[in-house]
Amino acid sequence: MQPRIEIRAAGEGDVAFIFAMIRALAEYERSPESVLGSEELLRDALFGERPHAEALVAELDAQPVGFAVFHGTFSTWHCRPGIWLEDFYVMPEHRRFGIGERLFRQVAAIAVQRGCSRLSWTALDWNTPALNFYGKMGAQALDEWTNHRLSGDQLLAVAGSA
Amino acid sequence: MQPRIEIRAAGEGDVAFIFAMIRALAEYERSPESVLGSEELLRDALFGERPHAEALVAELDAQPVGFAVFHGTFSTWHCRPGIWLEDFYVMPEHRRFGIGERLFRQVAAIAVQRGCSRLSWTALDWNTPALNFYGKMGAQALDEWTNHRLSGDQLLAVAGSA
Repeated sequence: MQPRIEIRAAGEGDVAFIFAMIRALAEYERSPESVLGSEELLRDALFGERPHAEALVAELDAQPVGFAVFHGTFSTWHCRPGIWLEDFYVMPEHRRFGIGERLFRQVAAIAVQRGCSRLSWTALDWNTPALNFYGKMGAQALDEWTNHRLSGDQLLAVAGSA
Repeated sequence: MQPRIEIRAAGEGDVAFIFAMIRALAEYERSPESVLGSEELLRDALFGERPHAEALVAELDAQPVGFAVFHGTFSTWHCRPGIWLEDFYVMPEHRRFGIGERLFRQVAAIAVQRGCSRLSWTALDWNTPALNFYGKMGAQALDEWTNHRLSGDQLLAVAGSA
């Protein structure tokens, strides 16, 4: 029998699954200690009064096996919105049947539907399976740029003398 | 006389100035051909019905000399919102008096006011003055990650088979 794959928008009932997957992805990315959030914060961020992101869930035979979390961006060069894919993951034991590709293509389709000029994300330099997949999708690697970040006490210190 | 520096939210009257600065920054970044937007698109994106980004303007003695454009993000690890600084620029002839630092600190202060856990941005690897400034601000360089992007025909192709 053919496996039944469905990609759908996440609902509040998916929060526990998505948070578990965020943990699983962080472990794969060798940063389990970086997960400082909680299901409650995630619920509020996705389904609260002022959502900060959206999520998709991938189902295999009616069981959730993968997810994507994304939010809007803006390109000054294009003066148009874009989408940033923050997390994208399929459970390793279910990586067949092209579930990840279906999920990724759905995010791209949402970007196009919304008039976005770009779909962007970041990938770890040692994550060869992911880099191969993104290459296959025709993605451009922005090798000349390095992301920077202020957080925690550093962010407070810089903000404090504004 | 002390120079008078003011950092303020941009208004619709600043759109022409901001678009000129987007061009100037793109030239400095050796990508003038990448500016495909227009003042009209920028006005709609910043001040239309559904804004995609916000902007600040830096004034020196009541003349605009710099700008910042930013939008919201979301961290799955923190389950909290963040701010992405898309563009940040002060006209070269006015780079004194710490105008850029005031502008940058104001963006950080907005991030803290909004309960963000991160302020993020990307910088060109050869832009030494910028990298030095970000280092002075205590920023962390995410060397292990590379940004990727789908746009134009590649984005349409991936979306098309969703």
